[in-house]
Amino acid sequence: MTRWKVTLEYDGAGFSGWQRQAGQMSVQQAIEEAVEAFCSERVAVMGAGRTDAGVHALAQVAHFDLQREYPPHTVRDAINFHLKPNPAAILEAEPVSADFDARRSAVSRTYLYRIENRRARAVLDRGRVWHVPTPLDAEAMNAAAQLFVGRHDFSAFRAAECQAASPVRTIDSIAVTRSGSEIRLNVRARSFLHNQVRILTGTLKLVGVGRGSERQVAAALASRDRSHGGPTAPPFGLYLTDVVY
Amino acid sequence: MTRWKVTLEYDGAGFSGWQRQAGQMSVQQAIEEAVEAFCSERVAVMGAGRTDAGVHALAQVAHFDLQREYPPHTVRDAINFHLKPNPAAILEAEPVSADFDARRSAVSRTYLYRIENRRARAVLDRGRVWHVPTPLDAEAMNAAAQLFVGRHDFSAFRAAECQAASPVRTIDSIAVTRSGSEIRLNVRARSFLHNQVRILTGTLKLVGVGRGSERQVAAALASRDRSHGGPTAPPFGLYLTDVVY
Repeated sequence: MTRWKVTLEYDGAGFSGWQRQAGQMSVQQAIEEAVEAFCSERVAVMGAGRTDAGVHALAQVAHFDLQREYPPHTVRDAINFHLKPNPAAILEAEPVSADFDARRSAVSRTYLYRIENRRARAVLDRGRVWHVPTPLDAEAMNAAAQLFVGRHDFSAFRAAECQAASPVRTIDSIAVTRSGSEIRLNVRARSFLHNQVRILTGTLKLVGVGRGSERQVAAALASRDRSHGGPTAPPFGLYLTDVVY
Repeated sequence: MTRWKVTLEYDGAGFSGWQRQAGQMSVQQAIEEAVEAFCSERVAVMGAGRTDAGVHALAQVAHFDLQREYPPHTVRDAINFHLKPNPAAILEAEPVSADFDARRSAVSRTYLYRIENRRARAVLDRGRVWHVPTPLDAEAMNAAAQLFVGRHDFSAFRAAECQAASPVRTIDSIAVTRSGSEIRLNVRARSFLHNQVRILTGTLKLVGVGRGSERQVAAALASRDRSHGGPTAPPFGLYLTDVVY
């Protein structure tokens, strides 16, 4: 038996999210079916991050076990062949030790949130960015974002349906930068709560348009009350960009 | 009367090209119809570059004349409102002097060609890049590209149907660079022949995979014979990125 680590790119718009759900096509199911079509083995694919419906990945990581032996390029190319026409592809496949676990072995996950901040709607990047036509103050957003760095109770910034036992998470770094008309939020942590990055983004967007201050963000964090956090930014601006082991 | 200069982004996949053609939706026609829907004036929109079907623009420039006066943000926002659902938008609208001509006043045009160079096909950038799975030597491509800089007869690198009176053009600069799995070709000239950038790219791709040498590229250029130039790269990797006046 060989345990395989695969790195995946996918367009979140084509799936109901990472996790299997009856009656809808998830990324997990698409890969499991492609693996079976390739080698007739039924596998359980475990992902590093359970991205929601609409959320993209530039480098999701997953693992599964195959009984037979194959060269890495065969695993990658054959699964990609069978993944078509789903908007997902394996960028890299590598054999790893049997104790590698895509979810539990990860020491950090990095997400990117892209905002198109101009009057004209997104054209070439439609479905890839959140269009915010009101001018955003990226420096104010970045200053407020620093309040999230470190270990905090993020109860104000997680979805009501979040099933994590603890609302405490540690954000390693967060940065909001502007490049032309695009605002990019990069955030890294060992793990995140459900919708955490999208709620942090929605909260910082209010700061960016001048409808929220650093003081209000600090008060929301201290409140541990979801009703004090900002709105949830749409899924299609969010990308899982890196998982480190 | 006011002459308006507009800067446009569009997705080439949504149009039959820049120029009006019976029975197909061109970018030119889409803008002319949006202008008429906005202010009931029938205008002729002149573009800086007549991009082919499938070719994108990040910053095409065009001009037209309006009899009535409007603030620039009204021209931009109202035309954008009526441009929907076409994949095009005006990024900026500004009044210019009556002798400004989007095509004739341009002193340079810059195009970008994007190649996704990895085994896995493009997912998030599908329709935005040319997928070349064979490894490309970007340095060899860049070295060969320098042969095109300066004033040359580009007969070997223009479409059979090119209607330009002279095959002589002057390339100001050309650079091929790699960033991760993406190869980017940036080229600037006062003007280009029909399909010139796509044929230059197709020729340099042969060099990149080792099926063409600098010597062969030099010989093709000297031949002035289209049959010695490389194939025409697909339109969907090409972007008009800048027009300077």
